[in-house]
Amino acid sequence: MSRRTISHEDGAIYEFTPGLEAVDTVEPGTELTIETRDSLDGAVQTESDVIESIPEEVNAATGPIAVEGAEPGDVLGVEIEAVRLAEDRGRVITIDGFGLLDGDEDIEAPRTRITPVDGDSEDDSEPTIAFDDLEVPVEPVIGTIGVAPAAESYTTLVPHDHGGNLDTTDVTGGNTVYFPVFQEGAMLAMGDCKAAMADGEMCGTGAEIATEIDVTVDVISATDAAVDLERPLVETADAWKPIASAETLEAACELANRDAVDLLAAEHGFDDTDAYLFSSLTGGLEISQVVDPLVTVRNAIPKEYLSSPF
Amino acid sequence: MSRRTISHEDGAIYEFTPGLEAVDTVEPGTELTIETRDSLDGAVQTESDVIESIPEEVNAATGPIAVEGAEPGDVLGVEIEAVRLAEDRGRVITIDGFGLLDGDEDIEAPRTRITPVDGDSEDDSEPTIAFDDLEVPVEPVIGTIGVAPAAESYTTLVPHDHGGNLDTTDVTGGNTVYFPVFQEGAMLAMGDCKAAMADGEMCGTGAEIATEIDVTVDVISATDAAVDLERPLVETADAWKPIASAETLEAACELANRDAVDLLAAEHGFDDTDAYLFSSLTGGLEISQVVDPLVTVRNAIPKEYLSSPF
Repeated sequence: MSRRTISHEDGAIYEFTPGLEAVDTVEPGTELTIETRDSLDGAVQTESDVIESIPEEVNAATGPIAVEGAEPGDVLGVEIEAVRLAEDRGRVITIDGFGLLDGDEDIEAPRTRITPVDGDSEDDSEPTIAFDDLEVPVEPVIGTIGVAPAAESYTTLVPHDHGGNLDTTDVTGGNTVYFPVFQEGAMLAMGDCKAAMADGEMCGTGAEIATEIDVTVDVISATDAAVDLERPLVETADAWKPIASAETLEAACELANRDAVDLLAAEHGFDDTDAYLFSSLTGGLEISQVVDPLVTVRNAIPKEYLSSPF
Repeated sequence: MSRRTISHEDGAIYEFTPGLEAVDTVEPGTELTIETRDSLDGAVQTESDVIESIPEEVNAATGPIAVEGAEPGDVLGVEIEAVRLAEDRGRVITIDGFGLLDGDEDIEAPRTRITPVDGDSEDDSEPTIAFDDLEVPVEPVIGTIGVAPAAESYTTLVPHDHGGNLDTTDVTGGNTVYFPVFQEGAMLAMGDCKAAMADGEMCGTGAEIATEIDVTVDVISATDAAVDLERPLVETADAWKPIASAETLEAACELANRDAVDLLAAEHGFDDTDAYLFSSLTGGLEISQVVDPLVTVRNAIPKEYLSSPF
């Protein structure tokens, strides 16, 4: 099967709604290349382009893509093969009213810094972005990725059980993200990529950049899952990580740990208490982002202790 | 200089107060071995020993140890050379009213699971602890470590700017922790070690265990520091991490990120806004613990971007 390309020009959404209409329909197992704009739709090209307030439309997510046979209760697997940068610069910005240190008198907002992409030229070095004379390795992140939600609608600024603006560094090439399917066809969309991002995304952005993303989509029948997946789950090289978003980090930690307890209990025949005790010994809670309208954490379970729940 | 041993029988505290009296006084550069009890003072030896409620005295910290020449405004460096397990079992427990999932109807409290120490015997394998038939690598953590605070007193259940119950996995052999000195002699004390602990310490404990800790203490003059250290800072093999505790994870994240901004600004001559933008591109926020009366996070800054501030 040849790789199919879906561009932001084919369609992009700024809101995940239950009634999304697909720009394309693909079979499970289809290899896709998804082209995404930067989260600010190209509005920031130089350091004099500043963003005064969060735009009404932000984090354009290319899609949605219907996957044949995906029914509510199933799981959508999105294997991310690669995230390639598609422009020569990223941008990291402050916006008044947004970010972890918003309101700190020494933090100026708005400000834009352009982070040029280097290092893909003469020598064999890994690509980097530059911030002044500092070089940061390119480690791309898909900031917004999700499916049509069950009942509520969520703008692409918000993360929730359908995914959305998860801003999770593990959502990158080499990893697979699993989503609950709430609507027929699942309706996958993604965008808002970064060339690099710290866990936390403290100022409110990473180095926002356009990309081409290679993914393969798969549908897992509800009957083949060891647990009822209620929220996104990411598989990395060495861990499984339930991802949870909530009003506070504490509430998100509770959800992510509860999901980890369910996975460990199903795998080992533990009751929930033993699974909880075991979850406190290895891996653990990680911060995804602390700046969006809901905040996001994950609970890493090393693969030594958990096989695929699907 | 021969290594000096200080045992919990020499002295241990359950509260960090401004007016601590030293059990011993040592010169900067002294190599110490500090013997610690488990956080529950040996009360839990089998799975039938359960803890109904948090004891009034918990997390005994061996010490305090005065360091000659340490004056308020200085920095105390504690190089942790090794943390060795000093008994054949750890214990991981739930306590009613404590822990991330406290109140969840499927979580039983109190419960105790004993985690025997294995793997240090015939073969060359790394030591592990056992939980049922699962083996977890021994990766010790010093849960409680700190100095006499400035004005308030804090029980050894509470983390704050003086350190205390930080429950931070990076506080382990091979790393160095730096504390602000608030009182003459600094008054170092530590205990509450774990054979292994997840980031988050979700159930409220790791595998609590007695240890012998090798450390070397050092005093850094305020005039030799690039920043005014207000809170603990840990140096790992690859990062510097300010550690902050507060009522909420969000508030702790703000403090830790603010400290990271100060360190990056001092190193690179950035203004605070550029340091903040840069901090959002690499490393990032990490969860230490989400269960103590104040919660704790850290902000990792890779060493490529930060030299020693001392």
